[in-house]
Amino acid sequence: AFSGESLRINGRGLLFGLVVGLLVGVWGGLFARLLGAANHLREGTGWAMFLLPLAGLLVVWMYRRGGIKTAGGTDLIIQAARGEQPVSRLLAPVIFAATLLTHGFGGSAGREGAALQLGGSLAELVRKGGKLGAEFQDLAIMCGMSAGFSAVFGSQITAALFALEISCVGILPLGGLFPCVVSSLAAGTVARAMGVRAMRFYLSASTPDVLFYGQVLVLGIACGLLSILVCYTFSGVRAGLARLFPNPYLRVVVGSAGVMVLTLILGTKAYLGTGEALIAQAIDQGRAAPQDCLLKLLLTALTLGAGLKGGEIVPCFAIGASFGCVVGPLLGLPAPYAAAVGMVSLFCGVTNCPLTALMLGFEVFFFCNPGGFLMAVAASFLVSGYSGLYAKQKFAFSKT
Amino acid sequence: AFSGESLRINGRGLLFGLVVGLLVGVWGGLFARLLGAANHLREGTGWAMFLLPLAGLLVVWMYRRGGIKTAGGTDLIIQAARGEQPVSRLLAPVIFAATLLTHGFGGSAGREGAALQLGGSLAELVRKGGKLGAEFQDLAIMCGMSAGFSAVFGSQITAALFALEISCVGILPLGGLFPCVVSSLAAGTVARAMGVRAMRFYLSASTPDVLFYGQVLVLGIACGLLSILVCYTFSGVRAGLARLFPNPYLRVVVGSAGVMVLTLILGTKAYLGTGEALIAQAIDQGRAAPQDCLLKLLLTALTLGAGLKGGEIVPCFAIGASFGCVVGPLLGLPAPYAAAVGMVSLFCGVTNCPLTALMLGFEVFFFCNPGGFLMAVAASFLVSGYSGLYAKQKFAFSKT
Repeated sequence: AFSGESLRINGRGLLFGLVVGLLVGVWGGLFARLLGAANHLREGTGWAMFLLPLAGLLVVWMYRRGGIKTAGGTDLIIQAARGEQPVSRLLAPVIFAATLLTHGFGGSAGREGAALQLGGSLAELVRKGGKLGAEFQDLAIMCGMSAGFSAVFGSQITAALFALEISCVGILPLGGLFPCVVSSLAAGTVARAMGVRAMRFYLSASTPDVLFYGQVLVLGIACGLLSILVCYTFSGVRAGLARLFPNPYLRVVVGSAGVMVLTLILGTKAYLGTGEALIAQAIDQGRAAPQDCLLKLLLTALTLGAGLKGGEIVPCFAIGASFGCVVGPLLGLPAPYAAAVGMVSLFCGVTNCPLTALMLGFEVFFFCNPGGFLMAVAASFLVSGYSGLYAKQKFAFSKT
Repeated sequence: AFSGESLRINGRGLLFGLVVGLLVGVWGGLFARLLGAANHLREGTGWAMFLLPLAGLLVVWMYRRGGIKTAGGTDLIIQAARGEQPVSRLLAPVIFAATLLTHGFGGSAGREGAALQLGGSLAELVRKGGKLGAEFQDLAIMCGMSAGFSAVFGSQITAALFALEISCVGILPLGGLFPCVVSSLAAGTVARAMGVRAMRFYLSASTPDVLFYGQVLVLGIACGLLSILVCYTFSGVRAGLARLFPNPYLRVVVGSAGVMVLTLILGTKAYLGTGEALIAQAIDQGRAAPQDCLLKLLLTALTLGAGLKGGEIVPCFAIGASFGCVVGPLLGLPAPYAAAVGMVSLFCGVTNCPLTALMLGFEVFFFCNPGGFLMAVAASFLVSGYSGLYAKQKFAFSKT
């Protein structure tokens, strides 16, 4: 620890994390603000959502021009974080624009796909610019993912762990801990200075007793089972659309039209965008309709299956929160706390990242009743099995 | 996840975690209360500390009668948690009694050694009683360690992670997550009902900025370097005493006499016992003398090197808190927060368990300024290198 060699290595880790964090923080902050404008376009106008098929055509065209696989997305970055795959330098601008188009014209999707891919590919540019060899690719991508997640979500601790935990369940490449922490804290600080607001909710605490742990255990199991349904729906809709419409241009037009028509039939835009309004309604007001989680799932699966972009995570937050808000009170839990537990434990089920999920629960809800999150996350992790959003994620161990 | 087989396995995990948690919770609660009585004996009388050499002779005699290696301690349990070593059924009663003797008669030691070994060996009894095969030994030991740590410290989330993280740095055997969570929550709940009070402190929060992160980074690095000194002192004093006094009876008498004499010279019992009073003084009142951390280190190293029992963790909390309380204000940090950061990041440095350390910081200090703990823990983890309290701990990766 005292040698010149290790000082040099650690100094490089600090510097690299800092540069990536600042750079990705600025881009992430800009992205979050443009996303706000995109949301205004969708919510504030009647006409924007009718242009979704056109936006979709543009997205598909960009991906094909850039030579980037349309499917893949976060899976590409997960493979890159294990050093198995290089990252196209066009990935950052393409995912950036594609996500804005998706959100502005009425798609239902998240934004973490953009955050992770943007971060990862910017970090690769920094690595190459800094003349660091290919053996640092995994570290660079992890730093970039931390920074991207942190900038867009404002949850800095969650972000640092997510990058370490996502690519192989049960293995934490802790050599990346310090650079990831630095880049996450730096990116989050920059993004906050640029006006990005973190997702935060106050809950009322209660004293945990045996009954309480039993209730959250059952809710966690239910969310773990729901996560299987969610993952199969995403992959099933994607595969189904690809089989029915092998031409990606036709596919994106049909899928987008489906999103539009469903939205018109339902008569609400509540299921478009990331679904943050659903989350706030479920957690702040303890209010959700039983069909909310299923409709959000369906519209997001259609949007992403069509070839539009953004990611699945925030929609999964909304699905879990709406589900918990409806199911929790049946078990005797207060609706807002159950919504919070639903959001966190569904996240755990679909990503297979229990530590990140736990941290998400602590960071977003100010460490309110942490034992309940622990129990629900552990149960959901167990029950969700080996299904997940990311086909390229590896498992180091059996879950039981 | 739906099959009868997996239901059976998961049901077994739930039941096993619950039984171990309840059982260890009762024993841990009893142990904590008896430890309270032992502390009264030491603090409330003038004569008890003069009997330390006698108590030491008794401890060494018990270990030799029981055929248990005197050194080893928590290392034995770490090996058992990887399934590499069986656990003597005498370990639980022997460590229980030895720790009470150490604390009652004026040794300076922790109590987590007892908690982990008691928990692990009781869990093995449950496994054998439940006719579970040897392939469940690792899982059983991890459940027992979770429950023991949880019962004695009252930090249930920290306890669950510690058992998973301790034996191999960088590998999380997440198949044990659910049973460990159940046993930790159960043991903590039982122990609390039996009157065990968890360590908890309120700190004042501040808005983290770049300067703040720089300050905690430097403090974290300092604690990482301190952790190297701490580990070398523990192992050096142990090895030195063993070389000078190969006879364990003579060694324990000389070492105990050393503790006694030093205490008389210093004219204070403040460095005996676990050191919780030092911790409270540093964190609640922001008060510590510069020599506190070194004297606590020396007396604990002598106590444990002599062959007395208990563990190193709470003394390390005290060393880290006293150190942070003195060094933090020099860096411009408030003394109480710096003491908290010192406690948590020294723990990280000596155990090489960053996630557990982070959780400790969150749980003990109510998630106050969590980003500061994250930064300091990551820095300490990096700087502390491959030194640690536990010789049998493995490292899956390079730390850089």
